Amino acid sequence: MSKSPVTDSAAYLEKKRFFNNILTVYGRKPVLEALEDPSTDIYRLHLASSNRSASIMDDIRKLAEKKGAEILYHDRAALSRISKNAKQDQGVAADLVCKKFQSSDDFLADNLGKKFRLLALDGITNPQNLGMIIRSACAGNIDGILLPQQGNAQIDPLVIKASAGTVFRAPILRCEDLAKTLTRFIDKGTLVCGLSSHAPANLKDFSPDAACIYVLGNETDGVSAKVNALCNTSVKIPMNNGVESLNVAVTAALIAFQ
Amino acid sequence: MSKSPVTDSAAYLEKKRFFNNILTVYGRKPVLEALEDPSTDIYRLHLASSNRSASIMDDIRKLAEKKGAEILYHDRAALSRISKNAKQDQGVAADLVCKKFQSSDDFLADNLGKKFRLLALDGITNPQNLGMIIRSACAGNIDGILLPQQGNAQIDPLVIKASAGTVFRAPILRCEDLAKTLTRFIDKGTLVCGLSSHAPANLKDFSPDAACIYVLGNETDGVSAKVNALCNTSVKIPMNNGVESLNVAVTAALIAFQ
Repeated sequence: MSKSPVTDSAAYLEKKRFFNNILTVYGRKPVLEALEDPSTDIYRLHLASSNRSASIMDDIRKLAEKKGAEILYHDRAALSRISKNAKQDQGVAADLVCKKFQSSDDFLADNLGKKFRLLALDGITNPQNLGMIIRSACAGNIDGILLPQQGNAQIDPLVIKASAGTVFRAPILRCEDLAKTLTRFIDKGTLVCGLSSHAPANLKDFSPDAACIYVLGNETDGVSAKVNALCNTSVKIPMNNGVESLNVAVTAALIAFQ
Repeated sequence: MSKSPVTDSAAYLEKKRFFNNILTVYGRKPVLEALEDPSTDIYRLHLASSNRSASIMDDIRKLAEKKGAEILYHDRAALSRISKNAKQDQGVAADLVCKKFQSSDDFLADNLGKKFRLLALDGITNPQNLGMIIRSACAGNIDGILLPQQGNAQIDPLVIKASAGTVFRAPILRCEDLAKTLTRFIDKGTLVCGLSSHAPANLKDFSPDAACIYVLGNETDGVSAKVNALCNTSVKIPMNNGVESLNVAVTAALIAFQ
């Protein structure tokens, strides 16, 4: 008897949702610190079978076991395919389960009709800024961070550090192409808001009647032309003393704590 | 005929105020970029007489001349006494005139009875953070940044870069000992406000009836015990997702744009 296609499909979707939750971190100290956070869950710990014994490795293994992780041993080449960073993985990678990570499409499907507030990151290449944005968004009133795989810094040890470890509990919404993703949100009535010194409304006084995605652009070049063309509203942050712009992580924080 | 002591004293005070305006920057690119900003004034350009000719040096000299600076040549040892950074000065230092730099005592004397808002920096050692704080304070609604000479990062090329050049027009209030300075402000009725998760008032709703100094502490250790003991009010910034603290530059921005 074959399984029903419906069940297959539901199981497939559930599995896909589960893997969208997974964040693979690498490097001995980053993995140890991630596991020391009582709120993190771990699915699998990957170790290079060539690792020499070291007390930090014992600590990592013990914490991973305690959290119920599967522990797998690989040759060096296989481990670097998992960590995607042979230079910095130091023979360790961990698949963390970040419950608030999901695909942007799942988020949209789950939140139709709600007045959510998102940040969309369009070329945040500085790990320090990405980490700070995640930390502020996570602490403030932001329901998700649209983080395209391409064009932004990867969630690496520098980002984790700058996020003060908050990335593991942050609502990261993964997507491929930001412009296409924004279009799908716009089709469901979402506002896409750019920052512009020419905007009529001040961020402070801006309280839209619909869901709204605030777009943050690259540190030097700003928002890309493709994404900028999709913005259907804009706000300004008035500045004194002739200052022309704020750091992008500061802008993110002002939006998050508006 | 001797000059009257009163005139001498007034001239002395004026000279002192002028020298409180001076910020000495060093390094070829930082000096060039500072001079390229149309809003910066320069008092003196200091060059090492041993400098070889280079086009960037010609550009620096031309800009300094155009801005009416006195150009002085020194031997290497004398130049490093001026730059206070022989390793990084590259044979160039410039005394910029930053009109909004002043001593905290002058600021207090000039603003008695006004409802000013200041930031006080108590151990901001990361140049990136110091620069970002200056940029946000300068853009936002802050009348001055109390920057003790000791215990904080120096205004060096990293800070200037992180400030996006805004430091030259920022209202920096110099002081020696922060605790003693705060005491003088308190004596004139100024509130000194710490950030605490236990505070009754939210930053958002906090609008004191008096002048107020918001104290920002070290990235790791927070506000020093001595300064903390002087805080006569406090506010909190409520945070979601179990996040316990914000980056200090983000906190500064939330205060500046409150």
